[in-house]
Amino acid sequence: MEGFEKSLEAILQLIGEKKYALVREELLENNEADIAEIIEEVADELGTEKSVILFRMLPKDISAAVFAYLSSDCQVDIVGSITVKELQNIMEEMSFDDMIDALEELPANVVDRILMRTDKETRKLINQFLNYPESSAGSLMTIDYIGLKKEMRVRDALQFIKIHGMDQETVYTCYVMDSQRHLEGIISLRTLVVSESYEVVADLMHEDFISVNVLDDQEEVAQLFKKYDFLALPVVDKENRLVGIITFDDIMDVIEEETTEDIERMAGVFDGTDKEYLDISVFQHIKNRIPWLCLLTVSLMITGAIIAQFEDLMSKVISLVAYMPLLMGTGGNTGTQSATLIIRGMSLGEIELKDVLKVLWKELRISIVIGVILSIINFAKIMIIDREPFLVALTVSVSVVIIVMFAKLIGGLLPMAAKKMKIDPALMATPMISSITDMVSVIVYFLLGTIILGI
Amino acid sequence: MEGFEKSLEAILQLIGEKKYALVREELLENNEADIAEIIEEVADELGTEKSVILFRMLPKDISAAVFAYLSSDCQVDIVGSITVKELQNIMEEMSFDDMIDALEELPANVVDRILMRTDKETRKLINQFLNYPESSAGSLMTIDYIGLKKEMRVRDALQFIKIHGMDQETVYTCYVMDSQRHLEGIISLRTLVVSESYEVVADLMHEDFISVNVLDDQEEVAQLFKKYDFLALPVVDKENRLVGIITFDDIMDVIEEETTEDIERMAGVFDGTDKEYLDISVFQHIKNRIPWLCLLTVSLMITGAIIAQFEDLMSKVISLVAYMPLLMGTGGNTGTQSATLIIRGMSLGEIELKDVLKVLWKELRISIVIGVILSIINFAKIMIIDREPFLVALTVSVSVVIIVMFAKLIGGLLPMAAKKMKIDPALMATPMISSITDMVSVIVYFLLGTIILGI
Repeated sequence: MEGFEKSLEAILQLIGEKKYALVREELLENNEADIAEIIEEVADELGTEKSVILFRMLPKDISAAVFAYLSSDCQVDIVGSITVKELQNIMEEMSFDDMIDALEELPANVVDRILMRTDKETRKLINQFLNYPESSAGSLMTIDYIGLKKEMRVRDALQFIKIHGMDQETVYTCYVMDSQRHLEGIISLRTLVVSESYEVVADLMHEDFISVNVLDDQEEVAQLFKKYDFLALPVVDKENRLVGIITFDDIMDVIEEETTEDIERMAGVFDGTDKEYLDISVFQHIKNRIPWLCLLTVSLMITGAIIAQFEDLMSKVISLVAYMPLLMGTGGNTGTQSATLIIRGMSLGEIELKDVLKVLWKELRISIVIGVILSIINFAKIMIIDREPFLVALTVSVSVVIIVMFAKLIGGLLPMAAKKMKIDPALMATPMISSITDMVSVIVYFLLGTIILGI
Repeated sequence: MEGFEKSLEAILQLIGEKKYALVREELLENNEADIAEIIEEVADELGTEKSVILFRMLPKDISAAVFAYLSSDCQVDIVGSITVKELQNIMEEMSFDDMIDALEELPANVVDRILMRTDKETRKLINQFLNYPESSAGSLMTIDYIGLKKEMRVRDALQFIKIHGMDQETVYTCYVMDSQRHLEGIISLRTLVVSESYEVVADLMHEDFISVNVLDDQEEVAQLFKKYDFLALPVVDKENRLVGIITFDDIMDVIEEETTEDIERMAGVFDGTDKEYLDISVFQHIKNRIPWLCLLTVSLMITGAIIAQFEDLMSKVISLVAYMPLLMGTGGNTGTQSATLIIRGMSLGEIELKDVLKVLWKELRISIVIGVILSIINFAKIMIIDREPFLVALTVSVSVVIIVMFAKLIGGLLPMAAKKMKIDPALMATPMISSITDMVSVIVYFLLGTIILGI
């Protein structure tokens, strides 16, 4: 890591001194992932013009790999500054799935111009891939894999891999198909290498392999990878014909994306882009955040309207008002804990819908103990430090127990109910839970106050 | 997936009918990961006694693999019901890193009994591995890798892999060392397979490989995997001697664990265990949740004390009280959005400490627009629907703008300040941010009220 940062600093300085021959030399000291990062940093620091110059310095054989590592913003900048011919060369050198990813982000007119220059067969394939739904297995897969035949001997298979191995996404899992491309088995390169050269693929391959369908959701695919520690997974169509493979590196990105989406939704942010925080414009940030805030404002207005109903009570015992934030806050905090644990548990597959009673029973017991502990702390503080009347302390501390119990139960139940109704459970996190507990807290508190204080 | 669930149902029924021969047959229809999941489910549904029976049905060659897939709770249950001899057999069949993982979870007296029966060399190695700090690279690595020599020809290397390949964690990346085990280069099996048999390893290997130190933090290691899409990464000691390798499947678990920890901390839950929600006892759940709740209660008490200072103002204009939750809630919600985006951005490496001014400038612009929008909505509602005096509406809507700006800035700043001070930024999420914005909201609101309403 240190080497890369030193290199970046040297390059920034050399660009300032316009010593481009030395820039090129320094740049090529790095591997492709680091070159891409240096280009991104140069774009940030010195503008896209300089970063394009850096990119055009790269030899043809590595520019494709670097291009694949760049963010889509940076890809678009570069595409805007090179000829279609140059772009086509890059596309041809890229692996198939990286090319599809890049094409998805490019402006439609550029994509059209690239497609016009490719042969009919490839064009058809690219169009097919561009049409898979955004988060389907199809959109993640690549067609660069090793296909073998059942009757091959180990030595033939290894010879086949020796010839075709360099162009494939992975050679470590190979796919055995019949003449109609129906998937019959998979075999690892490890098995081939440790077997005798005269053995036959059909006898060595696994026939009870797991495969996914092109239209399966990427989240399900990611679950399979996590469960079975796959390097790659075959993707088949309805007739069980192999159409592509998904490799673990693409799945790591999927897991990260899905988690980020979950976390953002849990905070009431709906990011329509896949961009990094600093790359998102102020306007887009506002668009991502304002809808949920407006909804929450309405809910807070309702809470306010409820409070207004108790103005009479409050004006008689004004000290009750000072404990309102305590009760609302405690409801929100305890509810958030439960909701977050349940949402995360469900997204990891640890909690299923059938566990709903177990969850509620657990949360009920937890909430009673926590409610009583917090209630005692508050009672003591109100009596000893605030020196308020016993009945005020009683109102607050009984409210605490009821609110904590309600908050933990609703925090456990709501994400599961959302999942049942096919709504994303992540929506049922902090902002939603605290809106609901706010309303309930106020009602419980003031109703109890009316009863206990006899007003 | 369907096959596995059908199998589970059949097994549950067959156990009920005590047809154990058929249970065994059905069980062995599944692969190791699914067998482990079936055993876990049986433990949940019918108790550990039955799950142990299932485990003991397994042939020796697959019981080790199944054992490695089981949760640590289930492992402990099984260890308690089998003889040390049986356990030792399982340990011997397991891969080295799975064995270390299992040993870490077992009770100390069981570990001692196992170690007593292993030879001195292995015992020393196990003890060394058990002593690596919990989240260090050392604790993740395995010693089962392929080591080659520089002067080997491709055919010798492949022959070596053919003999030793089945026992290793991975054969797809091989490590080239000198006689003192200093790491000199790495070479992929792909390179070996596509090269001519007379070529020499020294000419084919990568010498500019990336390695990590045994004591490096697992989060840094995970970042490297994500950036470079590695299958495996070598772990070296201070003298650059190879001590083990880390494979991508262990890293996927690390990423998941670290994310869960982040998400839980962001909700104020501090889970001392790595267990699943349903496996954690009620007592442990309470222990995980109560400390942060007590801290938040203190902060809510302070907010209450601040409010109490303004009782005079409130009793004169009681309608002000009804808007208090709106302001506190809006502060919390807007601050949470910013804090969450910054925390996630930092944990993905998208936002660095040097970006602090960029972040604040972005949040400032966002907060002004959002503040003004929410302010207008509230002003209109208070004037038109609530029909409150102009000065009350003015107090609320000016407060909204100031509170949103404060909340977004503190939401952006606090996680970065925490990181600077080497505190986990995830602590600066919802509960913390909303505690702070609560206090500030109340002060801003009532001070403005005093000034505008002239009380």
